[in-house]
Amino acid sequence: MTSQCIRRLNTAEKNFDTQLDQLLAWEAVTSDAVASVVAEILQQVRSRGDAAVIEYTNRFDRRELVRAGDFIVASADLNAALQRISPEDREALEVAAQRVRDYHYHQVQESWHYIEADGTVLGQQITPMARVGIYVPGGKASYPSSVLMNAIPAKVAGVDCVNMVVPAPDGKLNDLVLAAAGIAGVNQVYTIGGAQAVAALAYGTETIAAVDKIVGPGNVYVAAAKRAVFGRVAIDMIAGPSEILVICDGGTDPDWIAMDLLSQAEHDEMAQSILLCPDAQFLDKVAVSLQQLLTDLPRAPVARKSLAKRGALIQVGSLEEAIRLSNRIAPEHLEVSVADPERFLPQICNAGAIFLGRYTAEALGDYCAGPNHVLPTSGTARFSSPLGVYDFQKRSSVIYCSAEGADKLGRVAGTLARGEGLEAHARSAAFRIKGDTPGQ
Amino acid sequence: MTSQCIRRLNTAEKNFDTQLDQLLAWEAVTSDAVASVVAEILQQVRSRGDAAVIEYTNRFDRRELVRAGDFIVASADLNAALQRISPEDREALEVAAQRVRDYHYHQVQESWHYIEADGTVLGQQITPMARVGIYVPGGKASYPSSVLMNAIPAKVAGVDCVNMVVPAPDGKLNDLVLAAAGIAGVNQVYTIGGAQAVAALAYGTETIAAVDKIVGPGNVYVAAAKRAVFGRVAIDMIAGPSEILVICDGGTDPDWIAMDLLSQAEHDEMAQSILLCPDAQFLDKVAVSLQQLLTDLPRAPVARKSLAKRGALIQVGSLEEAIRLSNRIAPEHLEVSVADPERFLPQICNAGAIFLGRYTAEALGDYCAGPNHVLPTSGTARFSSPLGVYDFQKRSSVIYCSAEGADKLGRVAGTLARGEGLEAHARSAAFRIKGDTPGQ
Repeated sequence: MTSQCIRRLNTAEKNFDTQLDQLLAWEAVTSDAVASVVAEILQQVRSRGDAAVIEYTNRFDRRELVRAGDFIVASADLNAALQRISPEDREALEVAAQRVRDYHYHQVQESWHYIEADGTVLGQQITPMARVGIYVPGGKASYPSSVLMNAIPAKVAGVDCVNMVVPAPDGKLNDLVLAAAGIAGVNQVYTIGGAQAVAALAYGTETIAAVDKIVGPGNVYVAAAKRAVFGRVAIDMIAGPSEILVICDGGTDPDWIAMDLLSQAEHDEMAQSILLCPDAQFLDKVAVSLQQLLTDLPRAPVARKSLAKRGALIQVGSLEEAIRLSNRIAPEHLEVSVADPERFLPQICNAGAIFLGRYTAEALGDYCAGPNHVLPTSGTARFSSPLGVYDFQKRSSVIYCSAEGADKLGRVAGTLARGEGLEAHARSAAFRIKGDTPGQ
Repeated sequence: MTSQCIRRLNTAEKNFDTQLDQLLAWEAVTSDAVASVVAEILQQVRSRGDAAVIEYTNRFDRRELVRAGDFIVASADLNAALQRISPEDREALEVAAQRVRDYHYHQVQESWHYIEADGTVLGQQITPMARVGIYVPGGKASYPSSVLMNAIPAKVAGVDCVNMVVPAPDGKLNDLVLAAAGIAGVNQVYTIGGAQAVAALAYGTETIAAVDKIVGPGNVYVAAAKRAVFGRVAIDMIAGPSEILVICDGGTDPDWIAMDLLSQAEHDEMAQSILLCPDAQFLDKVAVSLQQLLTDLPRAPVARKSLAKRGALIQVGSLEEAIRLSNRIAPEHLEVSVADPERFLPQICNAGAIFLGRYTAEALGDYCAGPNHVLPTSGTARFSSPLGVYDFQKRSSVIYCSAEGADKLGRVAGTLARGEGLEAHARSAAFRIKGDTPGQ
């Protein structure tokens, strides 16, 4: 019966590596059809601005916009949304926002410099980006937490202008999303979405200022549009399906672990929930818990498909092996639900967010623990990081040579420049060498 | 006569903005032809590994490789190159490497955490990537300085395995490049290039380990291949032509400024050299210097074309206006050749590297001042940074809730999760709430 719900694997099986590779296989594919639709939308918005944005929005979102002003949300409307939501919702959003803000202040990077013996100054000046655009999905999957997680790091970084786009299919907007925008300090909200919204943020229109970076999740058209404008503006990572990897020593309540796996599985059918445990009997118990807990879960149909397609309970030889496997998988979310979790922390090298101990449900990190919930998926934790303040700051190198420093460095630079056949480089340095003449 | 060498503009002219936009216009375009050639190469290397790498390398680089081992450079060969180069070259490379290393150690980010009143621990763990690939162009534009600038930050970050690819057309390799690889601590050198080298680094072959990130400049095929594998591995920015913006108060020797402009112009015909100065007579003098200094410059034909196509001497109303203009241009290299350069530093927000004072030739930064010479081009300094140690480190959020913390946070998370219709999230958090039952 449990085998119907989620697959069981064992690292001791000889074809385990192949099975694991198959389980993890996922690749973002942009179909040519999507790419060509997106290319046309980008081109139209780039050349015709607001007019094209209005046309696409009316067509795709069944709106009746007449002029650009019609897609702007007045700040009074944000306040009104904040008044309309329940006091409990409002307090939860405000507590979450404050905790996210507190955590992200630790990420602020400061400018630095040092002075060498000859008076030469070297350093790095750190500044915020000027304008950032946040994409927030509309319609059925409207996530106020996503507004907080994308906007707050930008504001903490010091970005002056954080603008948000959110589609309003049939004119409908989510009050919690608008309230979250107000709490997060979003400067301007535009009720547009899809590739046309990405284009408007990247190129600018008569009404919408071009931004320096676009962040936030979206459908395949949004992802394709972000990929296409990458380079003209910065973008965040193109996210794959959400994943959780739980490592448990068998000492946590199996219901807790099962619900943690379900909290990932309920996201969508491609979400991935994997449990690693050395104790076969514990895996049995979790399998039973999964079946039981699924029965009255509102999103059970989604979670069932996710578990069946992409879930796994994996028996490992030891917790050490589990950690090695986790480093290979590089999960978005890693729960280390064991007795002494801090013991394993130094060995963990690839993970978006690490949840230590039996009490740290992954869901806390999604909403209010403080760290960002925008995390690297599909193994990209090997080389990328949670969204953070550092994503909205940039650096400039600073070099201020003393006369003596220029003399010393000019000689070295001249040798290297001539080695590369770049004589003007050598001569430019040579002008600052004492008593030298640049011609030689 | 001077008008033949470089254009003159004035911010007071009424069509200046349009002229400036035209001057700056540059867009990376990947032709469909290049993209389809690259897609085929990526596919072949991905499915056939070393065999495909060998075939393409033999075809494009006129090599006669038989087996994969033939494209590996033995570490003895790196040492041999180090012995073959002149003592002066070797010392220059070693001085440069040490200064680059010293500067980049200031960029190392450390893990941090803090403990809340209820015992909950929040933090961020910082770790190096495991494997990085460096692309180094071969043939006529072989730059040892580029090896240092790409490899050293990775090594300082703690990357275990820094592998380098460099094509060897007709089997020819540059001793300075090999010597620089040895000095920088590169772990393995493969004499392959083009899209096939990018594919090998991204997907791995029987001989070449797949890496987490690929950095370094290359031709249009290399750029297209990097763009295509972006997401599977991290890449650095796709670089445009090199640029310098000089702001001068008119008090620097016009020959010095002219040579600084030429040092950029000699890179390639699309390189861009712009001078901003409030003093029209100084601009006249620089124009004369340019003509004179061009006469015996080895790469004068390239520099002339660059100045004619993309260079400009621009008269500004004031130094303050020059700084504002510079922030709009967001140059790769910014020289502030004025009396009190530090006065302007806080106003500079968009620039890859800032060279302060009359003695700080941009060329010093290219080779040995310490900061990286891999810098954001084409206005991307609005949102990106010099290559640095931070590009080879990644972060993991760390959350370790106390029982009390899980209780407090679980309530907030539950409210927010139910607001988003994610009941399993709410129940997973509720399990950790004292005396609560997750079903409600």
